[in-house]
Amino acid sequence: MKATIITIGDEILIGQIVDTNSVSIAKHLNAAGIVVREKISIGDDRTQIIETAERALAGSEVTVITGGLGPTKDDITKKTLAEMFRSDMRYDERVAGHVEKMLAERGIEFNELNRSQAMVPACCTVLFNAHGTAPGMWFERDGHVVVSLPGVPFEMEHLMEDEVMPRLKTRFALRQIVHRTMITAGLPESMLAKRIEAWENALPPYLKLAYLPNPGAVRLRLSAYEVEGESVAREIENRFEALRRIIPHNIIGFETATMQEVVHKILTERSLTLATAESCTGGSIAARFTAMPGASAYFLCGVVSYSNESKAELLGVDPADIARYGAVSEQVARQMAEGVRRTAGADYGMATTGIAGPSGGSAEKPVGTVWIAVATPRETVAILKQCGTDRGQIIDRASAFAIGLLRDCLNGN
Amino acid sequence: MKATIITIGDEILIGQIVDTNSVSIAKHLNAAGIVVREKISIGDDRTQIIETAERALAGSEVTVITGGLGPTKDDITKKTLAEMFRSDMRYDERVAGHVEKMLAERGIEFNELNRSQAMVPACCTVLFNAHGTAPGMWFERDGHVVVSLPGVPFEMEHLMEDEVMPRLKTRFALRQIVHRTMITAGLPESMLAKRIEAWENALPPYLKLAYLPNPGAVRLRLSAYEVEGESVAREIENRFEALRRIIPHNIIGFETATMQEVVHKILTERSLTLATAESCTGGSIAARFTAMPGASAYFLCGVVSYSNESKAELLGVDPADIARYGAVSEQVARQMAEGVRRTAGADYGMATTGIAGPSGGSAEKPVGTVWIAVATPRETVAILKQCGTDRGQIIDRASAFAIGLLRDCLNGN
Repeated sequence: MKATIITIGDEILIGQIVDTNSVSIAKHLNAAGIVVREKISIGDDRTQIIETAERALAGSEVTVITGGLGPTKDDITKKTLAEMFRSDMRYDERVAGHVEKMLAERGIEFNELNRSQAMVPACCTVLFNAHGTAPGMWFERDGHVVVSLPGVPFEMEHLMEDEVMPRLKTRFALRQIVHRTMITAGLPESMLAKRIEAWENALPPYLKLAYLPNPGAVRLRLSAYEVEGESVAREIENRFEALRRIIPHNIIGFETATMQEVVHKILTERSLTLATAESCTGGSIAARFTAMPGASAYFLCGVVSYSNESKAELLGVDPADIARYGAVSEQVARQMAEGVRRTAGADYGMATTGIAGPSGGSAEKPVGTVWIAVATPRETVAILKQCGTDRGQIIDRASAFAIGLLRDCLNGN
Repeated sequence: MKATIITIGDEILIGQIVDTNSVSIAKHLNAAGIVVREKISIGDDRTQIIETAERALAGSEVTVITGGLGPTKDDITKKTLAEMFRSDMRYDERVAGHVEKMLAERGIEFNELNRSQAMVPACCTVLFNAHGTAPGMWFERDGHVVVSLPGVPFEMEHLMEDEVMPRLKTRFALRQIVHRTMITAGLPESMLAKRIEAWENALPPYLKLAYLPNPGAVRLRLSAYEVEGESVAREIENRFEALRRIIPHNIIGFETATMQEVVHKILTERSLTLATAESCTGGSIAARFTAMPGASAYFLCGVVSYSNESKAELLGVDPADIARYGAVSEQVARQMAEGVRRTAGADYGMATTGIAGPSGGSAEKPVGTVWIAVATPRETVAILKQCGTDRGQIIDRASAFAIGLLRDCLNGN
């Protein structure tokens, strides 16, 4: 069972937005055993919409289209699909009532633009959009399905989950797709590939291996398409188990596992607590931890000590040391980590101080220079890292290095 | 001049990664006046790569391909393009030397997988990749150009900027594309469309208007394709100027303008200072401000007071009030904002306290309940907001509402 995803909107082609809709749709289809053959993004252009949809319809059993269903003039998907399926338009009372009610709740008048949202091609099945004003549409021709969904991510997501996927599962007899991804750290791609070469060569032909390098990590994905899911999933687990014996110290976890999740798990399991003191990372480390449900069990507090005064007052850093060594120094990083650990009464304190740029660098301490420290119940560890040249990249890398150092400390490395 | 972008990788089709490469490539091409006709993502599949590249080559003068150039077995783009262009492979000494040097610097051995990266199709021009081990490639056939770049975003980006764009500008006589986007807030899409209907109807036919709704904002984009840039840019400015008279209070700014940038500008211009006290937003507000260069001029410090003890110790919140009203309450939010303002000696203090979930909600204070407060030199303002049900969404929305409230206070609203 093959699918094509089409996202419509000039904003995609000019690079104004990142297309996350197709990512979410691809995940839904994969999880149900439907293989996405191709993803295509095109503009709000009648000819191109018809050509692309016809080609998708010919090449795959399922086509999912998003975008171009808004009330304004630049949105032409609905009328173009009606034309392609040679269908009249009809006024849908249920949609009209829903739109009117939604707008009334938000104190918005029901005007003719909104009324036009209740017009739908007569030949389609309306997919009721409980969370928005543009209805989804389900078309069929010669046993092939074409679905059109609004481009607002939240509305699209609900329609995929509540309307499209249940209908696809009823409509088609689907086989299964299995993906499993192991996250490794500490070995660059080519060294990892050499290290696991024998393991890779011994994989059965129906298991496809992909290497996905990230900064600081390489992901290994095993995939099998349109198979009996349960036995293949077990086989994949066994293969990864074997890998664990080859690279035992390089495995972070599975799927979207991150270093902060590893630390989150250790702190939670051992009932340890954490406090952060951030200068150049500006709250990013605190935000990474507190984004995870359950962080309140171990995350006591964070201080973003941007000014020298706050480093002294909130963290107890010695102003004389700031003057002598500079705010970006091993001495200050250590005192920040120890200070926040003491103030918060936490088991572990961690700190960053560096130059995120674009200004503030010097020959001795260029932009990207970051001191990182972790204060533990036994000792304080500090490292110096060069984190790049771009402000965003520096913040990201310094945060990642700091969390990595904390993991090493927790593991007693 | 038309272009097609092709991104290759099974990870895109299964929804494992978000394709940001095509966004960046589209921006580069647009900026040079090249119209992106279509973006296509396909798997690491020989037949599909050839079919798609041939179709792109037939339909547009420029085709940019990324992905599938790594050293491991799953990467087949290079040999597939060599086949498509009927070319032998040759060993490129410069690439080989560069790869060996890069790896040596990182302490990585030069093995046969790395050596294979120096093999390139004899018919292509090598685009030297100073930042990575996979070279870019430039092919020509019948006046059409096909460029193949590595999928690592950082390397792709440098190659686009340093190699591809200069060559395209030399190779073709290009016209211009002009896009300008105004960010509005406070009017939902359909009301905005009604309000500016006469303005929209009076636009000249070569100016294309698009409505791009975001949570809390609607972006209005005017686009003109393959025109004389300067005069059209002036015309667009005039049109937006006219719009400013119709919706004077709803304009945030242009392009990617955000509420925090508006606040950043006000604080910087008026030499005012800011301190943040965050509970449920966990450092996100501090991270939003400190991500902007120059934030150190006004951002004094932030406190992420997750524990009740830290609310009392670092911010001076009365523990009796936490016990009486709960940590998520107007009283605590006010005291947090006032406390951090006082501790930091800042002109403005802002605070959030809420229930980010998934647990911790009650009938009276469900997940998503957030109290937001801003302490100013004159008064303290507090508002209650319901910020949704998903942890990430709650953190985002609460951060946005808080920064919006600060803007209103700074504007004296």
